[in-house]
Amino acid sequence: MTPDSIIARYEIETQFPLDRAAASMTGEQSAGTFVRVEGESAELLSRHGARVVSILETATLSAPSLPGARSRPGGVIRQAEVVIAYPLENIGPSLVNLMTLVAGNLFELGMFSGLRLVGIELPPAFTDAFPGPAFGIAGTRRLTGIDRAPVIGTIIKPSVGLTPGQTAALVDRLLEAGLDFIKDDELIANPPYSPLADRVAAVMEVVNRHADRTGRKAMIAFNITDESDAMLRHHDSVVAAGGTCVMVSLIPVGLGGFERLRRHAAVPIHGHRNGWGMLSRHPALGMDFRAFQKLWRLAGVDHLHVNGIGNKFCESDESVIRSARECQQPINGRFTVMPVFSSGQTVLQVAATYTALDNTDLIHLAGGGILGHPDGAAAGVAAYRQAWDAALAKIDLQTHAATHRPLARAIEAFSE
Amino acid sequence: MTPDSIIARYEIETQFPLDRAAASMTGEQSAGTFVRVEGESAELLSRHGARVVSILETATLSAPSLPGARSRPGGVIRQAEVVIAYPLENIGPSLVNLMTLVAGNLFELGMFSGLRLVGIELPPAFTDAFPGPAFGIAGTRRLTGIDRAPVIGTIIKPSVGLTPGQTAALVDRLLEAGLDFIKDDELIANPPYSPLADRVAAVMEVVNRHADRTGRKAMIAFNITDESDAMLRHHDSVVAAGGTCVMVSLIPVGLGGFERLRRHAAVPIHGHRNGWGMLSRHPALGMDFRAFQKLWRLAGVDHLHVNGIGNKFCESDESVIRSARECQQPINGRFTVMPVFSSGQTVLQVAATYTALDNTDLIHLAGGGILGHPDGAAAGVAAYRQAWDAALAKIDLQTHAATHRPLARAIEAFSE
Repeated sequence: MTPDSIIARYEIETQFPLDRAAASMTGEQSAGTFVRVEGESAELLSRHGARVVSILETATLSAPSLPGARSRPGGVIRQAEVVIAYPLENIGPSLVNLMTLVAGNLFELGMFSGLRLVGIELPPAFTDAFPGPAFGIAGTRRLTGIDRAPVIGTIIKPSVGLTPGQTAALVDRLLEAGLDFIKDDELIANPPYSPLADRVAAVMEVVNRHADRTGRKAMIAFNITDESDAMLRHHDSVVAAGGTCVMVSLIPVGLGGFERLRRHAAVPIHGHRNGWGMLSRHPALGMDFRAFQKLWRLAGVDHLHVNGIGNKFCESDESVIRSARECQQPINGRFTVMPVFSSGQTVLQVAATYTALDNTDLIHLAGGGILGHPDGAAAGVAAYRQAWDAALAKIDLQTHAATHRPLARAIEAFSE
Repeated sequence: MTPDSIIARYEIETQFPLDRAAASMTGEQSAGTFVRVEGESAELLSRHGARVVSILETATLSAPSLPGARSRPGGVIRQAEVVIAYPLENIGPSLVNLMTLVAGNLFELGMFSGLRLVGIELPPAFTDAFPGPAFGIAGTRRLTGIDRAPVIGTIIKPSVGLTPGQTAALVDRLLEAGLDFIKDDELIANPPYSPLADRVAAVMEVVNRHADRTGRKAMIAFNITDESDAMLRHHDSVVAAGGTCVMVSLIPVGLGGFERLRRHAAVPIHGHRNGWGMLSRHPALGMDFRAFQKLWRLAGVDHLHVNGIGNKFCESDESVIRSARECQQPINGRFTVMPVFSSGQTVLQVAATYTALDNTDLIHLAGGGILGHPDGAAAGVAAYRQAWDAALAKIDLQTHAATHRPLARAIEAFSE
């Protein structure tokens, strides 16, 4: 019987023979260093050594993607997909150590002018050890009382500078206009001018009042990003005030910090991926979202940001949709999470988002796209709902706008 | 009186006018989104807006460094150093939120074909809130009983696969040979074949026995990398057994997870930077070590890996030495940490390391360079000490080797 393996896929680029380059990866990441050492027995290598499963050459290049790599006289620069199997026994079911195992020092190895982790496959013996998302798609629908429609929301803007009272007043207008979901910007957490406890108290008074009126409680993702103990305290103050969501900046908090919050949390955790560009922006370096999202879904995030169609950043629409679909795809039968579409979203991207994703299991956030409506925030919410109504009914946006003034005004404003 | 600011320096690359590109950074990272919104008052912007301090054009390029950026017809690609001041009040003294503030979504902004955070300056009102390293250079010297010499150490190799008993037997030979410091490889933490508690028990029995004999206790950096609660338990088992150091893979654990360990820890924390290549390998993307090391020193790491001279990775010697010097340089009068030189180190790099660093406040680790000695581990330790004796006395390595056989054998083996 073969022991359990962790399978990782990489896109590499090297001037060295592909088998030798791949061997330098398995050596670096399991038994082996740059010289043979005492105790490195054949038995140890067979049980604990990482193994190259396959190497597939994909292209040749005229120039290296990353500087600093070792070159060979007359060496051709080749790209390849390399699949490596690591014995699960080398780390056991540990997410933080998984990151060191499949990523670790690999990116610095001298033979490579490109190295990117593009996928991870984990055996049930690994994934079974993790609780995963406590709420995910179904739990978020239950808490928001939204059965089948997309969860429509906004981000408090201006991103920074509003006092708790000003924030609560804005939330009041947004809930009056019928919004399902509101989140803090990632730039506001627990600053002196708006301490989280005060913001939670002011905002939840408004949220609870609207919930009493409508019978549905809007979900507010309070940004509790902080060091670990403070983050747990912030969570508790949200829950004590009747809040139903907390938000975390995943990369600064780290997998280790996040796992503790997950075990403690009584509400969904909204995962913001700021910092992600550092890991992914160069196509020959870092970590693909296909790998990244698995780590955080296993850690137990419930909502995960995937950027948005026609976003203000560099990512292509195709990549955004692929990321969202991955969030909805089970890992060993579990761990589905709600993709969060955000970044420069307005009524103009709604139909394309629905058409491309082909389902409504998403949170769709428009910050400026709602709050920047020429007739104010309430008109912004109305216009956004009208755009979704049109998309779900397969009605052309302009046609729908002819009889819906907030939508018409939004189209006019955001088409500039 | 000007309120306290956080100053961040970036190297950027763009086809857009530099002032407009810099303004897109301050807008993204403080008040402002892609449209004006209600409540974005002049007063709010003046108090909470980030401010461009300076823009210095440094070069023009013929091709963009990163793909995916927006281009302009006839636009010249220019590189510049941009300095931005963020109001401290926007986050208060929080390391995790500092990372979102100065890094965050910036790397994904469409105007840039390059964006790298190269430095952070923090006001005392920020740094005063952090305990910093509990041991640092002085505490490490006190615990190891080494007054002025460099701390010489090794990494348990093979990296993975040794049982607790086998690890303890290797440690026994190394301490017999007089080593000061031994660390786990980053690839072994708490795996089923060598549970940390068992490894600690087996190794510390050996360490304590040698300490009784010599009066000096070798420092063993046990890799306690794990989710947060488990990491604290591992720390406690190390301390209970008389251990004097724990090691952590910083990036997987994350700043949030790390800060909790720091407050709990009773021994120095050895910081391993695996994953660092993802953030730094492309010179136009990510985060320079000048910025990265400050985050972790404030968080309270005591030892920080800086790679090594003539390393097996892509980093230049100049960059390694600059990193090491930064670790030794106070931040607002505090927070100095011990730089750890490691990666492909042998007797051949000792003199160059000492000459370039010009002091002995370092931990110098040779894994294969000690354990791969042709006459075994004990000879490896002797050779490494002899190389340092020569360097400190400014004696030529070959001259010293003429009368020191372990050194001569090491030179022969590692010169191949």
